[in-house]
Amino acid sequence: MFGKILENVRSTHPLIHNITNYVTVNDVANMILASGASPIMADEEKEAEEITSICNGLNINIGTLQERTIISMMKAGKRAGELGHPIILDPVGAGALKLRTETAVRLLDTLPVTVVRGNMSEIKALSDSTHKTRGVDADVSDTVTDDNLDQAVTYINTVAEKWNCIVAVTGATDLVSDGKKCYVIRNGVKEMSRVTGTGCQLSGLLTAFVSANMECPLEASAAAVCTMGLAGEIALTHMSPYEGNATYRNRIIDAVYNMDSKTLEKGARYELR
Amino acid sequence: MFGKILENVRSTHPLIHNITNYVTVNDVANMILASGASPIMADEEKEAEEITSICNGLNINIGTLQERTIISMMKAGKRAGELGHPIILDPVGAGALKLRTETAVRLLDTLPVTVVRGNMSEIKALSDSTHKTRGVDADVSDTVTDDNLDQAVTYINTVAEKWNCIVAVTGATDLVSDGKKCYVIRNGVKEMSRVTGTGCQLSGLLTAFVSANMECPLEASAAAVCTMGLAGEIALTHMSPYEGNATYRNRIIDAVYNMDSKTLEKGARYELR
Amino acid sequence: MFGKILENVRSTHPLIHNITNYVTVNDVANMILASGASPIMADEEKEAEEITSICNGLNINIGTLQERTIISMMKAGKRAGELGHPIILDPVGAGALKLRTETAVRLLDTLPVTVVRGNMSEIKALSDSTHKTRGVDADVSDTVTDDNLDQAVTYINTVAEKWNCIVAVTGATDLVSDGKKCYVIRNGVKEMSRVTGTGCQLSGLLTAFVSANMECPLEASAAAVCTMGLAGEIALTHMSPYEGNATYRNRIIDAVYNMDSKTLEKGARYELR
Repeated sequence: MFGKILENVRSTHPLIHNITNYVTVNDVANMILASGASPIMADEEKEAEEITSICNGLNINIGTLQERTIISMMKAGKRAGELGHPIILDPVGAGALKLRTETAVRLLDTLPVTVVRGNMSEIKALSDSTHKTRGVDADVSDTVTDDNLDQAVTYINTVAEKWNCIVAVTGATDLVSDGKKCYVIRNGVKEMSRVTGTGCQLSGLLTAFVSANMECPLEASAAAVCTMGLAGEIALTHMSPYEGNATYRNRIIDAVYNMDSKTLEKGARYELR
Repeated sequence: MFGKILENVRSTHPLIHNITNYVTVNDVANMILASGASPIMADEEKEAEEITSICNGLNINIGTLQERTIISMMKAGKRAGELGHPIILDPVGAGALKLRTETAVRLLDTLPVTVVRGNMSEIKALSDSTHKTRGVDADVSDTVTDDNLDQAVTYINTVAEKWNCIVAVTGATDLVSDGKKCYVIRNGVKEMSRVTGTGCQLSGLLTAFVSANMECPLEASAAAVCTMGLAGEIALTHMSPYEGNATYRNRIIDAVYNMDSKTLEKGARYELR
Repeated sequence: MFGKILENVRSTHPLIHNITNYVTVNDVANMILASGASPIMADEEKEAEEITSICNGLNINIGTLQERTIISMMKAGKRAGELGHPIILDPVGAGALKLRTETAVRLLDTLPVTVVRGNMSEIKALSDSTHKTRGVDADVSDTVTDDNLDQAVTYINTVAEKWNCIVAVTGATDLVSDGKKCYVIRNGVKEMSRVTGTGCQLSGLLTAFVSANMECPLEASAAAVCTMGLAGEIALTHMSPYEGNATYRNRIIDAVYNMDSKTLEKGARYELR
């Protein structure tokens, strides 16, 4: 099924509106192109609604948030909601920073968000306002392991049900839940955390996958998470000893570019709970 | 002649002021450095005129346009005009978005633009206000083919004459016209469209080429378009099967870095109409 | 000693707050990750102080300066000062542009800056308001050579003493002084100047090194400068003939990622004056 989901991105090449941070914006654009979709990156308030209108999906990422871009996110999100477009929210830094937490909560309350994609610390912070995180990375205490997996799945199911959307938590083990079913995904390698923006790139990829597969957003989200992790695994096999995180960044995008449905079907490592 | 034009960039290394989008800004800077010129990227209104004054050419790109950067573009453009510096305009998204179309038209009306570089949909939108495009890519219906080449050349000549500047339309076949003569260029490969910002990079390269060759802006523009396309061709020959659009992005810039006049003269594929 | 300094970055992975330009921001983030530290890039005034508070060091870079980011720099800098965090200032374009010069002078006057890192033209412009530079690169007349080395060392010692901070001047020969002692560093290759943002990346790296080695900021600064230059040397040995500045950009970051204390100790070329 994941193979078919990827093929749908390749054949329909949805247009994705990204209101995203200026740190990883170029990589997000190239990742979306690698998937077969087309990106537009734009955050000016005056054209936010118009851009969303000509697109198929909206990716909102609150890294390098600014006062003016919050307005654009809200406007674009409302229009996307009216048009029935999927909205992906990446709450970068929620929990660590007040403006980020408040903005993410407000976006989540106001917009018909389809998928929230973050690390466990960000998700906890949005779900429980007393939770605190360090910087933009997940706390070690928030790592999903085999020991706490059952609890983590139950927790994410509850959050997804409460928010009435899909929640994708990424880390060593990834969880993708719609409140009823939860994909537990084991693709990916630890080296990916040494590349800036792999999370942002995944959120872009997720928007492309869901936009091209609106009839099965949960499966599309899980397929995107598997694709990103598998791309990280494949990319690592092509690294020379003298290469490091900068080259690895490119090879991950390259691996998505070269991903085919057969490789994805074969390489996706997940269980459905 | 194109070889000599490239050599002039290498020997005079003009300083290029870029007011450009934050998506592809890094690649544009590295592309300008690859050509032998030097880039300054800056969009703050307070220093726009001052920066232009110490530069040799101005590259205006309206991707990720903001209210505040429009003012900077206007100020820098006026000063560039007073100083006789070449101004290159890249109307990213014109036709698809109202603010972009209006801004591009206003820049074109107000400033002594030297070259407009865009895809056919953008050029049509600026020339004919009723034309609509999809996103930031050209419409399929706007593709220049052998069947409609004569018409396309005539059309671009007319537009260039009307605007009193050089018009460079890039796509499968590229057209570069000053209203009297038109270069029809067949360099480049389709894979380039899977890399974000190859158009933006070309506009930066074009500004470098024209700034170093003010006595022959039409030929310099055509040489820049050939250089970019040829670099795309050369870059493709160095790709491993597991490499994709992210690595290709780097190799295109690398190929410009390594371009020499002999390779350019030999590899440039164009006819003059 | 430099080896131990690098190991401290790797073992304590300090969190670095970067208020930096949008041109090279992604490379700066990946460079900081390559060093073993963690980056946060954010410039919104509303969260500037809060972000600095959860970090270990502050990197202020005035490339693509905006009115609004000046306020953020000031706020974050004051908080960093209160918390005793190291502050690194990269005065990109000072001397060439009035707003940049004034802002850098104001930051230097107001904040307890730990290290100023720039090219000789920028440093001269900040030290002597009558000095002018071309663009964001150092003037040829400001190059440190064997002929003027004694003078240059004396000059930088005086500047460092006057500013009561460490001054790191980078170019063909690098000087790192705290006003009493001066490291003269000969790592690095000229090809690095054909990559946009190697200076910005070094400032990020420097912040990571100093933040993890607060008991010896001069040595940490010198170690960072050696690491960057040595990475440039190592990266060059891995370049294929068809590769150029875009690939080289990645390989420099890769070389920092793969740098170990033994390689650094062996490869660092400096004398202490």
